[in-house]
Amino acid sequence: MNSYTDLVRVGVAGATGYTGVELLRLLARHPGVRIAAAMGSPGAAPRLVPSLKSLWDAPVDGLDLDALAESTDAVFLALPDQAAADVAPSLVARGKRVFDLSGAFRLRNAELRQRWYPGTLEQPPAVVYGLTERNRDLLRDSTLVACAGCYPTAAILGLQPLLQAGLVNLSGAPIIIDAKSGVSGAGKTPSERTHFSECHGSLSAYGVFDHRHAAEIEQELGTPVTFVPHLVPIDRGILETIYATLEPGVDEAAIAATLHAAYDDSPFVRLTGGDLPEIKHVAHTNFCDIGWKVNPRTRQLVLIVCIDNLVKGASGQAVQNFNVAFGFDERLGLN
Amino acid sequence: MNSYTDLVRVGVAGATGYTGVELLRLLARHPGVRIAAAMGSPGAAPRLVPSLKSLWDAPVDGLDLDALAESTDAVFLALPDQAAADVAPSLVARGKRVFDLSGAFRLRNAELRQRWYPGTLEQPPAVVYGLTERNRDLLRDSTLVACAGCYPTAAILGLQPLLQAGLVNLSGAPIIIDAKSGVSGAGKTPSERTHFSECHGSLSAYGVFDHRHAAEIEQELGTPVTFVPHLVPIDRGILETIYATLEPGVDEAAIAATLHAAYDDSPFVRLTGGDLPEIKHVAHTNFCDIGWKVNPRTRQLVLIVCIDNLVKGASGQAVQNFNVAFGFDERLGLN
Amino acid sequence: MNSYTDLVRVGVAGATGYTGVELLRLLARHPGVRIAAAMGSPGAAPRLVPSLKSLWDAPVDGLDLDALAESTDAVFLALPDQAAADVAPSLVARGKRVFDLSGAFRLRNAELRQRWYPGTLEQPPAVVYGLTERNRDLLRDSTLVACAGCYPTAAILGLQPLLQAGLVNLSGAPIIIDAKSGVSGAGKTPSERTHFSECHGSLSAYGVFDHRHAAEIEQELGTPVTFVPHLVPIDRGILETIYATLEPGVDEAAIAATLHAAYDDSPFVRLTGGDLPEIKHVAHTNFCDIGWKVNPRTRQLVLIVCIDNLVKGASGQAVQNFNVAFGFDERLGLN
Amino acid sequence: MNSYTDLVRVGVAGATGYTGVELLRLLARHPGVRIAAAMGSPGAAPRLVPSLKSLWDAPVDGLDLDALAESTDAVFLALPDQAAADVAPSLVARGKRVFDLSGAFRLRNAELRQRWYPGTLEQPPAVVYGLTERNRDLLRDSTLVACAGCYPTAAILGLQPLLQAGLVNLSGAPIIIDAKSGVSGAGKTPSERTHFSECHGSLSAYGVFDHRHAAEIEQELGTPVTFVPHLVPIDRGILETIYATLEPGVDEAAIAATLHAAYDDSPFVRLTGGDLPEIKHVAHTNFCDIGWKVNPRTRQLVLIVCIDNLVKGASGQAVQNFNVAFGFDERLGLN
Repeated sequence: MNSYTDLVRVGVAGATGYTGVELLRLLARHPGVRIAAAMGSPGAAPRLVPSLKSLWDAPVDGLDLDALAESTDAVFLALPDQAAADVAPSLVARGKRVFDLSGAFRLRNAELRQRWYPGTLEQPPAVVYGLTERNRDLLRDSTLVACAGCYPTAAILGLQPLLQAGLVNLSGAPIIIDAKSGVSGAGKTPSERTHFSECHGSLSAYGVFDHRHAAEIEQELGTPVTFVPHLVPIDRGILETIYATLEPGVDEAAIAATLHAAYDDSPFVRLTGGDLPEIKHVAHTNFCDIGWKVNPRTRQLVLIVCIDNLVKGASGQAVQNFNVAFGFDERLGLN
Repeated sequence: MNSYTDLVRVGVAGATGYTGVELLRLLARHPGVRIAAAMGSPGAAPRLVPSLKSLWDAPVDGLDLDALAESTDAVFLALPDQAAADVAPSLVARGKRVFDLSGAFRLRNAELRQRWYPGTLEQPPAVVYGLTERNRDLLRDSTLVACAGCYPTAAILGLQPLLQAGLVNLSGAPIIIDAKSGVSGAGKTPSERTHFSECHGSLSAYGVFDHRHAAEIEQELGTPVTFVPHLVPIDRGILETIYATLEPGVDEAAIAATLHAAYDDSPFVRLTGGDLPEIKHVAHTNFCDIGWKVNPRTRQLVLIVCIDNLVKGASGQAVQNFNVAFGFDERLGLN
Repeated sequence: MNSYTDLVRVGVAGATGYTGVELLRLLARHPGVRIAAAMGSPGAAPRLVPSLKSLWDAPVDGLDLDALAESTDAVFLALPDQAAADVAPSLVARGKRVFDLSGAFRLRNAELRQRWYPGTLEQPPAVVYGLTERNRDLLRDSTLVACAGCYPTAAILGLQPLLQAGLVNLSGAPIIIDAKSGVSGAGKTPSERTHFSECHGSLSAYGVFDHRHAAEIEQELGTPVTFVPHLVPIDRGILETIYATLEPGVDEAAIAATLHAAYDDSPFVRLTGGDLPEIKHVAHTNFCDIGWKVNPRTRQLVLIVCIDNLVKGASGQAVQNFNVAFGFDERLGLN
Repeated sequence: MNSYTDLVRVGVAGATGYTGVELLRLLARHPGVRIAAAMGSPGAAPRLVPSLKSLWDAPVDGLDLDALAESTDAVFLALPDQAAADVAPSLVARGKRVFDLSGAFRLRNAELRQRWYPGTLEQPPAVVYGLTERNRDLLRDSTLVACAGCYPTAAILGLQPLLQAGLVNLSGAPIIIDAKSGVSGAGKTPSERTHFSECHGSLSAYGVFDHRHAAEIEQELGTPVTFVPHLVPIDRGILETIYATLEPGVDEAAIAATLHAAYDDSPFVRLTGGDLPEIKHVAHTNFCDIGWKVNPRTRQLVLIVCIDNLVKGASGQAVQNFNVAFGFDERLGLN
């Protein structure tokens, strides 16, 4: 366990977006680190973050790769995909440990990368997929961590142990993931889709059969899924309703036993059983809440998974990955 | 076509709840009717409806069955299930045409009624299920109309033509209906579930494998469904995301052709194809918007259906049923 | 009274913004008009308005001034200020009656126009300020109507009769108007201020001592005001809380008598007295609700005024002005 | 400074309401305390708090005054006013230090208590008004702390230094406090007023000239105020827009200098000057943000003050008071 004798010098690139500000908020009170650099876009004038006043009062500077590399031990990238793809390899080459929140390094298959993240064909040799609960061992020796996407975090945490235990029947239609996300998941850039008057009082599906997070989920689960995301009028939070057919004889108790075995040592996964989780219980936290119901007659499983997309779905998970990578208690700075 | 020479004298029982007020709002500007009675609970003191000031200024009185029957030709019941079950038969017996918005008369199977609406075992002989687009012919001669539930309205309008045309493969897992509803669907009685601070910024599933609307949907579609409703932080509106496996060879064009054939003469069903519907386009209207996407590789159909739960899902549909029953243009008072 | 024998041919310029779409929605069911033209920005490709499908199915074309003038008797301008300033005079010169929803023609003082609407120095000779309840007589012979702004509509309707009757003491600090508006008041163009995640769960003041609607209110009331607008996380609606000191001896009854005398013949002003108005009762309507409380000890008046900013504060009022101008019943198409 | 060698044993009575749960959330991660008792209403069955799972997993028991007194050094009361009035004196008599979040002990004037909190006529001898920034010295020796109300916290923090410095002219109309509050301020008990469908998309004023917080503000400021609270559709947060007339010659710089002198040593007051504060920057924090604008022509001051009503307006402030009372760093457990 890290003994805190030296503060780790961390940097945040892309510190003015929603995930970047959340990273600063978390790191500013993390007892094991010192924020040595906070940078926005290249060439941007220094600016303060009003909501962090008194918590962290230094300005966010324009992106300067050399200054970033020189002043830090570890770097969090909260940049657009392409910018992250451009920047990460050279930081790794300089010996920095990189925690990337973009999608640039998540897909291992080059064809899928070409489709969903064109321009990220060159990949560093050793990328660890940064879903803490799955990859703790790999994270310890990681140099470049591709932190899991928000939708995939919820889907994989819910489904992976059940698939691994063989509880789900995969011979019929694909597993269905009906996902509902708050608007902050669409990022900070204004658009018609994220205009208050377009979202308030409404609800819509998007990206049906055509969302890159489906590829990420399928990669990690090893099975096709039908993934339909929806935009709901809340700021933070994802709730996924997952539908699968169980193998004969699998009941709620078997689901419970498998999930408890998988997560009883994971401080941020809370199993709620038949008391189905709600977004309000995970908002502003790093928790992932999982509940479930089984219909014995039809062998249908309904799994409900909730996270805060900006915390467990992005910045909190990045810090959790960082904690494991640097030998800190996994919970440090996250409670 | 009704020639408007005589205004139909209508009454509303249960006129202070959300659907009751919406009925008054619609009927107050309906050119073919005169509101002859508006009543709340038995024994309630007369009260005005502030939001209807200048539109309809008479007080809502306490429920008085005799006065109701004597003053009206047609009665809309926006009462709790049991109260509707108690009141409707005697109104029918007195020759009134009754449009019931409760669930008391929707289920034809006595066992299911016993489970979901205990105390409604006695049923009048001729009940018409009041989903206008399905039952126009039956509505013309109806005496008691059991207006369709809000969730069933969206599900049946979306699925029924496709099932009837044999486009859906029913041999595997049940059709999945992932439904999202605004909070007004839970009625006006305050509760922890409908408290603003419990709903705002949150999202939750409820009634999984245990909701009486599933029985109603299954009755009308003739096939089992997995139905999971969710409470979303909006006031009005339902969006249902429906997942089904198609028969081999069924593509988006076939879906489109079947739905157009079913609804091109239905003024309140709007087919949006691949431009998926959103709640904001149907809120405060009697429209039902239906869009769809097909994944040819997996033969998965995703159907998106939107309605306003208080209008097409309740009061608007009741007026639409009334219009057909009394020979008015189906759209009268609803645009 | 107009006898409806000929439908008035109306055009809408700027038909894709929030007020433009609301105009189309109202005009599409107005029994006295035919929408002869609906145009957006110059050069824009024709596009349908999805939310109006089945209500009004023609495309919105690019702005073409000649075609607009040739096909219409009356034109509604829902354009940006400068565009309206450029277009209106030539339409008037061609004999069209113009109802402008922008601010270009509202201020009579050239210096104030120069400050708040630079580039609108040239003004047509006869502009009528389009607050229906104040200017019914002038509207009848109008050629160019500068429809009142949203905030001024509420403030003037509440205060003007009281000021005219001399009930308000003006010797101390200015009258205070604390205004709260829904986000649609900021228009449809996406911006950081109107991003869902910036508005949801938040509240902010803006334009303090620096908002052009203060000048408009002061022009119509003839007295200085302190005006502070706030952005609140709702889509539609304005609530203004107005603070004034009363002359000695003025009590709630005097306020009531004066407002009733002013508005008892105005179908869209509803006086609620001590039952203070709420936005939900006016949303999606053309009503202006006014309530009040007086503290006899301090002679403080608190006036609460509510409107829907897109209806009575914009498109509804424009149609109301049009109705008066063309001799229709003031309420036509607005209930 | 407290050296943390012994954890303070704290109890929370009323631990299931919004402020009670917020207290548990804060105290569970406070390094200087151990939660020794968490109790709800008398006779209530033990129940877990789902949102605190993994943070604090003990059940909330029914209220037992003896057990509470025996197990704790300090008690937080998050009870209804009357219950707090009944319980606090005996806890004080047993030597417990009590931090009361109700209104029972806030008003020093017996007549006003009789009007606003009837049944709280008996008052313990030494009550400290618990607004930390005002009463740090008194808090150190306190036995019973009447934590400030939510609205008063914002109003007093904004106005008190300006009044004390004589910057505000008090000869004319009273200072006006136009307050906007999230719905959690109304507590957790369901009611029509707090029903989601009544609040969503709406806005309303209430308690005009008739709110007990006006008495509390007037007591602390020593001058009459016109106080109008509004309910806005957000969960957490208060924004107050305060209008006052300044003495001649007082400009923005004088306001700034006075507020900086008052608060530069107060870690939870952030002065934002002309960048007016917004609720989103204080939500879920213990900060009080204060901004201001002055109109030199009319000598009008507009002061904007924001807090989170459940944190700085209730539970956070109670913990801050506790920290001062027990010699901890004021910020402990609050960042």
